Amino acid sequence: MSEIRKVTVLGAGVLGSQIAFQSAYKGFDITSYDISNEALDGARERFAGLGETYKRDVAGATEEAVREARERLTLTMDLEDSVANADLVVEAVPEILSLKQEIYGKIGAAAPSKTVFATNSSTLLPSDLKESTGRPDRFLALHFANQVWQFNTAEIMGTPDTDPAVFAAVVEFATEIGMVPIELHKEKAGYVLNSLLVPFLSSAAQLAAGGYADPEAVDKTWKIATGAPIGPFQIYDIIGLSTPYNIMANGDDEQQKLAVWLKENYIDKGKLGLASGEGFYRYS
Amino acid sequence: MSEIRKVTVLGAGVLGSQIAFQSAYKGFDITSYDISNEALDGARERFAGLGETYKRDVAGATEEAVREARERLTLTMDLEDSVANADLVVEAVPEILSLKQEIYGKIGAAAPSKTVFATNSSTLLPSDLKESTGRPDRFLALHFANQVWQFNTAEIMGTPDTDPAVFAAVVEFATEIGMVPIELHKEKAGYVLNSLLVPFLSSAAQLAAGGYADPEAVDKTWKIATGAPIGPFQIYDIIGLSTPYNIMANGDDEQQKLAVWLKENYIDKGKLGLASGEGFYRYS
Repeated sequence: MSEIRKVTVLGAGVLGSQIAFQSAYKGFDITSYDISNEALDGARERFAGLGETYKRDVAGATEEAVREARERLTLTMDLEDSVANADLVVEAVPEILSLKQEIYGKIGAAAPSKTVFATNSSTLLPSDLKESTGRPDRFLALHFANQVWQFNTAEIMGTPDTDPAVFAAVVEFATEIGMVPIELHKEKAGYVLNSLLVPFLSSAAQLAAGGYADPEAVDKTWKIATGAPIGPFQIYDIIGLSTPYNIMANGDDEQQKLAVWLKENYIDKGKLGLASGEGFYRYS
Repeated sequence: MSEIRKVTVLGAGVLGSQIAFQSAYKGFDITSYDISNEALDGARERFAGLGETYKRDVAGATEEAVREARERLTLTMDLEDSVANADLVVEAVPEILSLKQEIYGKIGAAAPSKTVFATNSSTLLPSDLKESTGRPDRFLALHFANQVWQFNTAEIMGTPDTDPAVFAAVVEFATEIGMVPIELHKEKAGYVLNSLLVPFLSSAAQLAAGGYADPEAVDKTWKIATGAPIGPFQIYDIIGLSTPYNIMANGDDEQQKLAVWLKENYIDKGKLGLASGEGFYRYS
């Protein structure tokens, strides 16, 4: 297959803007699509903020490198036009099945046959979306973690229909934009990371919610036993409690109980984690 | 309650000898009990080996400090005599309920009323043992992790009968011997550490056993996402695969399947982990 050079990122929200900026920073021409002038204004602010973040946190991110990255970013509200010349489309629109299917229907008709489509969906499987793309062989999931410049995993997961050459090309692209490609051989809800993180965070919540041990004691135990720099409740605080809450609220009975515990004791009290100044711990 | 100064450790196996040595190293007079001359010879070898390990791995562990630790260790085969003057008895005998109950029956009769009994059991709850001690108010669990000089958690877990002053004294003792006390407010099978570790290691095994992702990819994901120095399959290798196997083999259906997977693909092939030179990874 042809090399991936021109990339379109659909959705310029928190993660979409990061994917676009990181790819541009690594030398790719990026078209960043969102639905309204307001959304594009938000994207411009995010790109500017990411530039500052990179200069502060990314080794070697000079003023010039950041400026060049921003020059490689083109913003648009024209969905069909945004994909007309794309080698790869990374879809990072809201997690609503019908919305994603509608978008895949439109870009499936508008994009050339060469274009590969990749969904960044956290909660849907690519099999849920593949038919709507009209090109199941050129479709897979490419899943990023928030703060892509630091947590640089890119989980890559196809369906049984995905062409292995397409899979390999996306693995290569992920590497080229500075990600560590994590290859999944079969579809798995939660990919690798959430398949580990959700049971881990649940077991920690069970200890605290059940009154067995305090969050501080749980974190201490994990850090000493495994040499990890942070324990599960510090991870909650960094992620923000809302995301685990949403996952647990959709889980089994035990998970739902933990969701209620998180909500009543923390979320309802404004303790949302690091970003809110307090979660399981207080931050200044 | 009186301060804990004289401590008896029942069982001089891998962990019992570590608990005894660490406590002696921190200045306590320790009586180390085991059942036979052969077992005591093994204990002497372990203490000598621990001395070398401490000199190599523990900051400030001089030749003199190690010698003094060994001088504070007294070995005996006389169970009743070993507890006759003890402030604290730490029981680290094999995980057989009837054996432990028999021992508690004997030392309950032989020890003075002041003596506190603590079980290091990993798999039994203190409630399973408390009646056999004849002193439920002076009995609790004090659970160490292998390689106490490095993985220095001491999980402390009472029953509803445990005197809070006894609990507090054991927390203080744990601190005095260089452990980080992890207080459990209620009984929990697996304490804190295994309540986190077992679901975590199971979820990792599910990814690999199910063919979703390779152990290396799973470990990479965890390390990048959480900043941890090692991933779950490296933890398996360090613990040794037999321990998680034994826990999973006694678990639910899903756990038992994972136990079979561990056995057939690794344990039966001699891949037992780091100590055997190979587990999920090869070591030289």
